[in-house]
Amino acid sequence: ELAALCADQFESRQLTGRHVIITAGPTREALDPVRYLSNHSSGKMGFALAEACAEAGARVTLIAGPVHLATPPRVQRVDVVSACDMLGASETAVNDAVASLGAARVVFIATAAVADYRPAQVAGQKIKKGLKDDTLDITLIKNPDIVATIAARADKPFVMGFAAETQQVEGYACDKLSRKRLDLIACNDVSRGDIGFQSDDNAMVVFWPDAGQGSSAAAPGLGRAELAKAPKTQIARALVG
Amino acid sequence: ELAALCADQFESRQLTGRHVIITAGPTREALDPVRYLSNHSSGKMGFALAEACAEAGARVTLIAGPVHLATPPRVQRVDVVSACDMLGASETAVNDAVASLGAARVVFIATAAVADYRPAQVAGQKIKKGLKDDTLDITLIKNPDIVATIAARADKPFVMGFAAETQQVEGYACDKLSRKRLDLIACNDVSRGDIGFQSDDNAMVVFWPDAGQGSSAAAPGLGRAELAKAPKTQIARALVG
Repeated sequence: ELAALCADQFESRQLTGRHVIITAGPTREALDPVRYLSNHSSGKMGFALAEACAEAGARVTLIAGPVHLATPPRVQRVDVVSACDMLGASETAVNDAVASLGAARVVFIATAAVADYRPAQVAGQKIKKGLKDDTLDITLIKNPDIVATIAARADKPFVMGFAAETQQVEGYACDKLSRKRLDLIACNDVSRGDIGFQSDDNAMVVFWPDAGQGSSAAAPGLGRAELAKAPKTQIARALVG
Repeated sequence: ELAALCADQFESRQLTGRHVIITAGPTREALDPVRYLSNHSSGKMGFALAEACAEAGARVTLIAGPVHLATPPRVQRVDVVSACDMLGASETAVNDAVASLGAARVVFIATAAVADYRPAQVAGQKIKKGLKDDTLDITLIKNPDIVATIAARADKPFVMGFAAETQQVEGYACDKLSRKRLDLIACNDVSRGDIGFQSDDNAMVVFWPDAGQGSSAAAPGLGRAELAKAPKTQIARALVG
């Protein structure tokens, strides 16, 4: 049980010798030099996890989209804008960490709210509003799936994902866990105003592939634990310990 | 000449008895509860103008899109998200100010980078990325033109606009001045990295309808002044003095 693990894992330095790579914040997908498509991610979860992991002794690389947050102490921060930038920075960080420590000592935590789609064409100049054009059609194309790309590596690190949904939260999260070959997924309901985006608190449920038959399992072959309002430092230490 | 005016207008309290209403920052146009379309406006220009106008004795209402800036002292701030919200807040503020002081004592300064378009349909739930859909087409519809709406009022206040362009800066600005019936327009070239969006400095050119034949006019019937790296407080005092 993760809840029990939390209580046991407050000793510091328990992550010494591990390299934790965390993506955080939104991405921005340019339509032209001025306009972009983005989403309401504050990046707080990823930054809090980065701080907690660094406090626990891990080497931490934080790959951050455009957010207004200070870099936690002893965290190496890489700023990116688009999903393609974030994928490139993630692959570089995982390559380096795996080469240095081996995949078993590398943890990849994908908290970023990566834009699923980007404009198919990026205008080099600001798109002018036509005087007679009451509508404008834009075509979006799918962005690369960063967490699935990392989880599909032959030298796969431990990979944790997050799911921010507004409906059927558990169903989507469990589907994402198996489809993307994640080792752990945390999900919350962003439609609740008291938790989720922009909020300092997150009430979360975590799932992992479970060969056993845990009594708390939501579905066969799946582990489940609720972390209602758990402090993020506890979550971080439990999940990557 | 505005440059000469600047030097003369440093006495404080010169805007006492006036109500200055300023829009600032970007707007965000929701695609669904999570995603939005926005632009790279920091809001710094509008907030600096609000501070300068308040220091000069004006009553100031600052209608702000989503920005990460502190409210200047003695400024009444109204936070909005979308262009439609911003129009509603602007009309309310102008209605109240004109009723209280008369249109001749009200100044409306539109620094906000209002989204020209918004998604035609806003999904109530997060749009799911289909496994097989490599593209997604979205239709945008035109947003209301806030500064033109205010300038078209029968009880029109003094209206100042801004133009942020990446090409043919002066041509677009002058067209905007006459088409939207503005009293003054300031423009800068946001494609220059050293000025414009996110920058603390703005090198600007301002234009106004000019019945005379100023030697510095860019076009017949148009006044023109360059305010290269002019401190924003000077600009504010010159423009609304």
